[in-house]
Amino acid sequence: MPTLYHLPVAICAQKTRVCLAEKGVAWESEDVTGQLRTPDYLKLNPAGYVPTFVHEGKVITESRVISEFIDEAFDGPSLQPRDPYQRSVMRRWTKQIDDSLHPCIFLLSFVPFFREFLLQLPEGEQRKAIPLDQVKAERTLNMLKLGWQSPYIKMGITRFEQLAIDLEACLRQSEWLAGDSYSLADADFTPYLQRMEDLGLDWLWEDKAALSGWYTRVRSRPSFSAVVKDWIKPDEREAAAVKAKEIGPKFQQILKTAA
Amino acid sequence: MPTLYHLPVAICAQKTRVCLAEKGVAWESEDVTGQLRTPDYLKLNPAGYVPTFVHEGKVITESRVISEFIDEAFDGPSLQPRDPYQRSVMRRWTKQIDDSLHPCIFLLSFVPFFREFLLQLPEGEQRKAIPLDQVKAERTLNMLKLGWQSPYIKMGITRFEQLAIDLEACLRQSEWLAGDSYSLADADFTPYLQRMEDLGLDWLWEDKAALSGWYTRVRSRPSFSAVVKDWIKPDEREAAAVKAKEIGPKFQQILKTAA
Repeated sequence: MPTLYHLPVAICAQKTRVCLAEKGVAWESEDVTGQLRTPDYLKLNPAGYVPTFVHEGKVITESRVISEFIDEAFDGPSLQPRDPYQRSVMRRWTKQIDDSLHPCIFLLSFVPFFREFLLQLPEGEQRKAIPLDQVKAERTLNMLKLGWQSPYIKMGITRFEQLAIDLEACLRQSEWLAGDSYSLADADFTPYLQRMEDLGLDWLWEDKAALSGWYTRVRSRPSFSAVVKDWIKPDEREAAAVKAKEIGPKFQQILKTAA
Repeated sequence: MPTLYHLPVAICAQKTRVCLAEKGVAWESEDVTGQLRTPDYLKLNPAGYVPTFVHEGKVITESRVISEFIDEAFDGPSLQPRDPYQRSVMRRWTKQIDDSLHPCIFLLSFVPFFREFLLQLPEGEQRKAIPLDQVKAERTLNMLKLGWQSPYIKMGITRFEQLAIDLEACLRQSEWLAGDSYSLADADFTPYLQRMEDLGLDWLWEDKAALSGWYTRVRSRPSFSAVVKDWIKPDEREAAAVKAKEIGPKFQQILKTAA
């Protein structure tokens, strides 16, 4: 049986769990919370992030690549369109996540979820918590200093506003993101929409009927529980919903002043 | 016949040309030098970059996605391994280009090729030449100010040193980057090695027999002319070789002091 090394809350791991659920693959869970920097885990995944997927002794990393592997290596419904052009459409959606949506989710999460904690640490400890990657470090230091006034928050929220517009335009043309059938693009965007909800951003699609309809459809699939419900305790879920109501209007205000 | 909108020197377009040559696909060339910001081109590719591939009225962008499309939509030798695990290996190689090698090629090219020209422009014109993307703009301004002393050059050269180590380790195990047969990973890395040569970086693999052997093999394939030889005039090629001899040792020096 394959093993998934993951964290309940990591959005890239949520993508893999949705894919496994859609495909109907049985898997063993290794929750590596607090272990990403241990020698054992770094042997599996030298970059020290999740998810890592191990199947028949082969180690596969990078969530997008893992999902394509799962679709191609296991029985179950095909999650990639047969038509080469539709497959290219699917790939342009999943590529957007790697290129800009994943870094922008960090920009929106840092101030409401991590900043206060970091500010309370002694300076030496604070420095250790700054990401090693140079771009991410610059952004983190800026948001640590400026909080909600950081221009990076504006950059992040503007990107997600554009995403909602692009998703709506696509879903007016087809039922799913890459045509007439559910694909890895739909699987990958499911946890992104859920995370946007947790950030109080559902106002980004309240006037978008096609996107709202799509989100209702993916929520009604059994795979939706693999994002959060099966992995996060109910009281934590409730706390997240309270937080979303607090921060959503702040993002809305920042977007308004961005114009 | 499909049409490729491209620039002779753009590395992403070179990837597509190699793929088309390997696949044996006939195509029409639209050199869009100087036209990337025209309304007509932006209609095709709203992000304003190359390549753009048009086939039977369908527009496909993003070089990695275009190559996968070409492999799947046209007859000719298959450029993706049949085995799902080997396919995941191929994808982790091609993904590295999008994630970090493409931005790092810019870091190495800016000071030797663009900085002097930009410094001569009046301030207003100079500002217009700064990339719109926030990360790229920050880096450009830093390199404009500090030249060869910019820490971004160190960041770029360190990344390519690691690439040479990773390629060598892989090619000691298999003849091609994703196993026993030539794949899109080999096609995509061909222009990267050629560009590294143009930057005078061939010392990065002079002690690496497996990587040197692989580069000799890809150079001997007919598709290699699609990178530079078929598209850049001989006198420009000669000037590039002279420049490479001048700048290569500077990068070597920066890497030494990086330790």
